[in-house]
Amino acid sequence: MPRYALKIEYHGGPFVGWQRQVDLPSVQGAVEAALAKLEPRAHTIAAAGRTDAGVHALAQVAHCDMEQEWEPFRLSEALNHHLKPNPVAILACARVEDDFHARFSALERRYLFRILSRRAPATHQAGLVWQVKQDLDAEAMQEAARILIGRHDFTTFRSTICQAESPVKTLDRLDVARVETLGGTEFHFDVRARSFLHNQVRSFVGTLERVGASAWSPRDVKTALEARDRAACGPVCPPEGLYLAHVGYPVDPFG
Amino acid sequence: MPRYALKIEYHGGPFVGWQRQVDLPSVQGAVEAALAKLEPRAHTIAAAGRTDAGVHALAQVAHCDMEQEWEPFRLSEALNHHLKPNPVAILACARVEDDFHARFSALERRYLFRILSRRAPATHQAGLVWQVKQDLDAEAMQEAARILIGRHDFTTFRSTICQAESPVKTLDRLDVARVETLGGTEFHFDVRARSFLHNQVRSFVGTLERVGASAWSPRDVKTALEARDRAACGPVCPPEGLYLAHVGYPVDPFG
Repeated sequence: MPRYALKIEYHGGPFVGWQRQVDLPSVQGAVEAALAKLEPRAHTIAAAGRTDAGVHALAQVAHCDMEQEWEPFRLSEALNHHLKPNPVAILACARVEDDFHARFSALERRYLFRILSRRAPATHQAGLVWQVKQDLDAEAMQEAARILIGRHDFTTFRSTICQAESPVKTLDRLDVARVETLGGTEFHFDVRARSFLHNQVRSFVGTLERVGASAWSPRDVKTALEARDRAACGPVCPPEGLYLAHVGYPVDPFG
Repeated sequence: MPRYALKIEYHGGPFVGWQRQVDLPSVQGAVEAALAKLEPRAHTIAAAGRTDAGVHALAQVAHCDMEQEWEPFRLSEALNHHLKPNPVAILACARVEDDFHARFSALERRYLFRILSRRAPATHQAGLVWQVKQDLDAEAMQEAARILIGRHDFTTFRSTICQAESPVKTLDRLDVARVETLGGTEFHFDVRARSFLHNQVRSFVGTLERVGASAWSPRDVKTALEARDRAACGPVCPPEGLYLAHVGYPVDPFG
């Protein structure tokens, strides 16, 4: 069966997450239902990152196996037609080798987290950012972020229901940028690793926000990391500012 | 009665427009209802721009008269509290002189129009941009835009229901920029004048988009302008990409 890689953008708001659940709206379920309109049968697709409820994607990658040969552009257009009115869009589609696996072939995952800092409630960007009322110190957050880079036991920054075999991961990058937008000042976190523990990015950002608000020092983040204790983590931030932004493979299937 | 200027951001999607209409949701009605929670009586506020259904604001300006003296920051916070869950936010509030009038004192209005150019349906920015499928030529649109700058009879670019006394207006600025965003390539139109005719910005952008798509030449825009005939206008574009972005006064009340 010919295999296709799909680059998928979605708004996480209406979904219980990526993963299919009986009788509940999931992104996986929406894409599989669209596939069933093209080839009527049960479809099961695999994705690079199983995002949680409310988490968005700019470029999730999944793969599907089809019975027919599809011209990739036509397949993406047909899926977008059947995905309506779900806020899910196929940005690109590519024919890939049978041994390509959206999850197991991935070498890098990048997440973006957006904090909007302002007093007045968000209007246009409601549901697309985590809003905090105070201004934040980007330099202090960047200083604290540097402590997290590298190979560490991230038990502190891992949800208690995380199913990963080991809490040891290598964090390749965690950049903090202050960005002026139409809706006000945002802080963007660019977080990159081969793979992540459950709730790792939201645990990082929730903790770094405490540093940005001067409630924690960068030194406190070091202490929290070294504690290897979930109770030492700062507050886990809400999902609506989180975006799966990029998945890297040995060869870019969409390149 | 003490007078206050309000800087207001809103998502135009759920509203019939700025202007109050009986039994229909309007932005004016939402703000007046919030004012009535603070001082229970009928309120009537005036705004710089009476935006149409679906049109957004980044910084609409209105003024209100209160019976009590309000500390401006407290007034904005109280209004934001009572405006929930409407997508309307008071960004700033200032005490102004009795002769300040949000509409009649305004010297400049700026609008932003956002076109998103991509094949796949918009997800995060749905309702916040006008989406077109083809790429556009920003240079050609800028060349055509230059023809519109200055003092002209804009009958071509004026809705037939426009109530302005004269079709002659001075367009101070119409800048076109290609902008790369998280959701793809956008084209931003920065349009500035002392005042506008009804549907003028949407008539400009709908016409310039035809130039960007190479269906019209800049020369065709000159011919359309000189025709002084509504029928010569390009297609009027939809409201969801339009934002009232700034209102200028002799002295910035929020400065």
